[in-house]
Amino acid sequence: MKIQIVEVGARDGLQNETRVLEPAVRAELVNRLIGAGLGRLEAVSFVNPARVPQMAGAEEVLGLIRPRGAEVAGLVLNEKGYERAAAAGVRDIRYSFPASDAFARRNQNSTVSESLELAARLIGRARVDGRRLGVVLGTAFGCPFEGEIPARRVIALGERLLELQPGELILADTIGVGVPGQVRELLGALSNPVVPLGLHLHNTRNTGYANALAGVESGAVILDSSVGGIGGCPFAPKATGNIATEDLVYLLHRSGYATGIDLEQLLEVSVWLSEVLAKPLPGLVYKAGGFPPAG
Amino acid sequence: MKIQIVEVGARDGLQNETRVLEPAVRAELVNRLIGAGLGRLEAVSFVNPARVPQMAGAEEVLGLIRPRGAEVAGLVLNEKGYERAAAAGVRDIRYSFPASDAFARRNQNSTVSESLELAARLIGRARVDGRRLGVVLGTAFGCPFEGEIPARRVIALGERLLELQPGELILADTIGVGVPGQVRELLGALSNPVVPLGLHLHNTRNTGYANALAGVESGAVILDSSVGGIGGCPFAPKATGNIATEDLVYLLHRSGYATGIDLEQLLEVSVWLSEVLAKPLPGLVYKAGGFPPAG
Repeated sequence: MKIQIVEVGARDGLQNETRVLEPAVRAELVNRLIGAGLGRLEAVSFVNPARVPQMAGAEEVLGLIRPRGAEVAGLVLNEKGYERAAAAGVRDIRYSFPASDAFARRNQNSTVSESLELAARLIGRARVDGRRLGVVLGTAFGCPFEGEIPARRVIALGERLLELQPGELILADTIGVGVPGQVRELLGALSNPVVPLGLHLHNTRNTGYANALAGVESGAVILDSSVGGIGGCPFAPKATGNIATEDLVYLLHRSGYATGIDLEQLLEVSVWLSEVLAKPLPGLVYKAGGFPPAG
Repeated sequence: MKIQIVEVGARDGLQNETRVLEPAVRAELVNRLIGAGLGRLEAVSFVNPARVPQMAGAEEVLGLIRPRGAEVAGLVLNEKGYERAAAAGVRDIRYSFPASDAFARRNQNSTVSESLELAARLIGRARVDGRRLGVVLGTAFGCPFEGEIPARRVIALGERLLELQPGELILADTIGVGVPGQVRELLGALSNPVVPLGLHLHNTRNTGYANALAGVESGAVILDSSVGGIGGCPFAPKATGNIATEDLVYLLHRSGYATGIDLEQLLEVSVWLSEVLAKPLPGLVYKAGGFPPAG
C-alpha cells in the first residue's frame, strides 16, 4: 500500500529553527528533497514576515523550486494568505486552524467557529479556482492552554469539515502529546470514502512514530514529516520537532508500505541539512543507518 | 492493565556510556529510581571488568542498593557469571544470548546451540537454588552481522526456551531495527499461559516506542527501558540507547496501562542523571514535560 508523505521541513521545520535561512537555501533544501523522491512538499507559508521571519520570501522560494513532477504546497492561516498563495500560482493550499478556542485566540486572533466559517469560504474559493484546499485541524490531541481536547469535539469539527469536502483533512498533534489510542478513535470516527485523511505529527514526547503507524493502520493515507525531524515547539523550548521523514520512511518501508522515497538519498539530505544548520538533527536513522546488510 | 517496566539504565545504559561511573554513583542512580516507583531494575552485570569497565564492581553496587521492596536483577552471559550472581545473593538473574551465530561468536565466543544448552543448565540450577532465571534472546529483530533474522528461527528458539520454562522470556531488539509487524508476529507465535513474555527495545531508529505499544497489545507484560534513554549501540557509534523509561511511562499511562511509576519523580531522576553524565539524554519527555494541565 502507498502512503503519501508530505515533507514539511522547509515550512514547519525551519519555521521553528532559530537560524533563519535565506530563500535560496530553503529552495535548495526542497530541490534536494524532490531529488530523493519526495512527491509532495509543504514548502512555504504565507504569513506575516514580521511575525515569522523564518518564512519571509515565500514567493522567492517558490520561484527557485524545480518541481520535476512534485506537488509544492503552501500554508495559509487567513484569507489574505490564500490570496498571496493564489497570486503566486500555488495549486496546493493548506489552511490550518486549531480545535481549541484558547489556541485560536493566541495564534490566529480568532475563534474555532470563525475559523470553520473561513474554512468553508476558502474551500469554496478553491473549488472555483481549481485548487486543492486541504484543512489541517490543529491541537486535535491536546492543547498547551486547555490541556485535554475531548475526542467528541475533534470528531464533531471533523464531521463539519468533511461535509465541506476539502481536498484533504489532516489531524495535527501540534504539541506532540497524542498516543495511538487517540489516533485510532479519531480516524475511526472520521473514516469516509471521499476526503483523504492524514496526520501531522510531532515527536515531542516520543509518541510520533507509534502514532504514524496507528494512523496508516486506521485509514490515514497522508503523513506529514520533516527531514531530520527539524523544528521545535514554541510551547516547549527544549522539545524537538516533527517526526523525521527518514525515520518515518524506515518504519513504513520495513512495515510493508511504499512511499516512493529513496531512503539512502534522503539520508544524504539530512547530513547536508545538519551541516547547514550547524547542529545534529533529532532524526535517528541518519545517525544509525538503515537496516544492516547481510555480512 | 499493569505492565512491569524493568529499568536497565544502570546496566545496559551505563554499559554503553563512555563515561565510567563509580559503583556508589551507580547505586545512587538505582536508589533514586526505586524512589520514583521502579519495582524491578537490572542493576548490574557479572561480566569481565577488563572487557566492560563500566560494569566493574557489581558486588559493591549491590551492597549499596536499598531495595525497599523492589527486585534487583543482574545479567550474566555464562556460567561463571551465574556463580558470581548467586554468590552475591542475586535472586533475579537474566541470561542473555543472541539468535545469530555470527553475533554469538563475536560477543560471547559461543554458538546459538551451545547457548541454548547453557540456558537449559542455568534454568535447572536456578530452579534448584530457588532463583528466577529469565532468558533474553538477543538480535531477535535483526543482526549487525547477518542482517535479517528469519522470524521462524526466532520462534523456533523461543519455543525451545519455553519448553524449559524460564522465569521470563524477553525478546531483545539489540540494535534497534525492529518494527511492530515483527513484534506482533513473534509474540503472537510465542504466546503461552506459563512463561511471562517481554521485550527489550532500543530506539536506535525511532521504532522503539511503537514496538513497545505493539508488544503490550500482543501479550507482552514486561518491558525493559533505561532512564533518559541512556546508552548507545556498539555497532552504530552515533546511535542512541534503550527506549527511555519516562517516555515509555508517558506512552503507557496515556494509553490506559498502569506501571506503578511516578512520572514527575522519574523526570527528576533524568534531570539529575543528565547532570551526572554532563550531557543531554536522548529521552524527550524530561525536556518537553508531561501532558499539559488545563490552563
